[in-house]
Amino acid sequence: MTGADKNAINLRHKTRTAKHKQVVDKRIAAAKVDKGLLLVITGNGKGKSSSAFGMVARTLGYGLKAAVFQFIKGKEEVGERAYFVRDPNMRWERCGEGFTWETQDRDRDISAARAGWEKAKEALADPTVHLVVLDEQTYLVNYRYLSLEEIMPAIEARPAMQHVVITGRAAHDVFVEAADTVSAIRDVKHAFRAGVKAQQGIDL
Amino acid sequence: MTGADKNAINLRHKTRTAKHKQVVDKRIAAAKVDKGLLLVITGNGKGKSSSAFGMVARTLGYGLKAAVFQFIKGKEEVGERAYFVRDPNMRWERCGEGFTWETQDRDRDISAARAGWEKAKEALADPTVHLVVLDEQTYLVNYRYLSLEEIMPAIEARPAMQHVVITGRAAHDVFVEAADTVSAIRDVKHAFRAGVKAQQGIDL
Repeated sequence: MTGADKNAINLRHKTRTAKHKQVVDKRIAAAKVDKGLLLVITGNGKGKSSSAFGMVARTLGYGLKAAVFQFIKGKEEVGERAYFVRDPNMRWERCGEGFTWETQDRDRDISAARAGWEKAKEALADPTVHLVVLDEQTYLVNYRYLSLEEIMPAIEARPAMQHVVITGRAAHDVFVEAADTVSAIRDVKHAFRAGVKAQQGIDL
Repeated sequence: MTGADKNAINLRHKTRTAKHKQVVDKRIAAAKVDKGLLLVITGNGKGKSSSAFGMVARTLGYGLKAAVFQFIKGKEEVGERAYFVRDPNMRWERCGEGFTWETQDRDRDISAARAGWEKAKEALADPTVHLVVLDEQTYLVNYRYLSLEEIMPAIEARPAMQHVVITGRAAHDVFVEAADTVSAIRDVKHAFRAGVKAQQGIDL
């Protein structure tokens, strides 16, 4: 490539990106609303809870309070919990007793879900909590452990600037419709299906 | 519902979940391989970088080392960086100068990408680093700032137990094929399109 060719490419790049900047800047200027968001991270792919925990790190990074309620996962210690609970702004509640096929006791699962939800409602009523993560909450609805009528009013009545993230597969339409942001993670490929064990730092 | 109905439901639940547990346990037992994974988190939806940062928290939670290379994002301070850099096991490099439409200077973007990639290669050669995040690296290839021939050998020759996460839209097929786990995040709904500004703790 000659120097003249390169200059031409660079000039085209500059013109094109300058035009693009106008479009982007206009869109950013149009986004004026500040509000507490409801985010739903669903789908079968890897990254739903991880993504919520990334937002926990962001929140704690500003010295703001975050609360995580894990509705399904059991009592085993995992990396993210070990890491975040060191922060005085973090509240972390393990409300579940494990997956249904681990407990095999529907009444016990329902009691655990209800007890967890009572705790989550405290955070959803507390304006000092900037972010509430309802991890794997979709299953509570899908398994009929809790009704949407029990869940939605607390989410809708939360403080105006509080963000809520709901994670889990197969999010109910009511969650999707109520949400400001919805991401559906598609499982294109997963190491587990190729015989790889859950890995520290990645899966737990 | 009578007590007898409830008992019948609970018994059915126990039988079904016990059967499911056999299937799950068998699958878990079959997953015997321990290896450093290559994960690709792509798609247009919200949650790609957040998900990588969740894995950073998991890694640091075990007292293991993590390294993040941000190839596009500019120099503004964000929550996740502020949070993680407090940890002595964290290396965080902001290699980008912002999006193309911000810099409007292709030569400068390419130099920044190359300098960043040289640093990332150090981490990819260091067996004490448990997790390497190549944040928004897909764009380096898509914009032709770096070739796959420059990138793939360093990823393939990394230490056997090191995990690598590549994030960014429109991941090249070569990344997808080389990866152990691929998640594609679909943008079902995004608050920004409804006029909501980027929110602390959620987007930055």
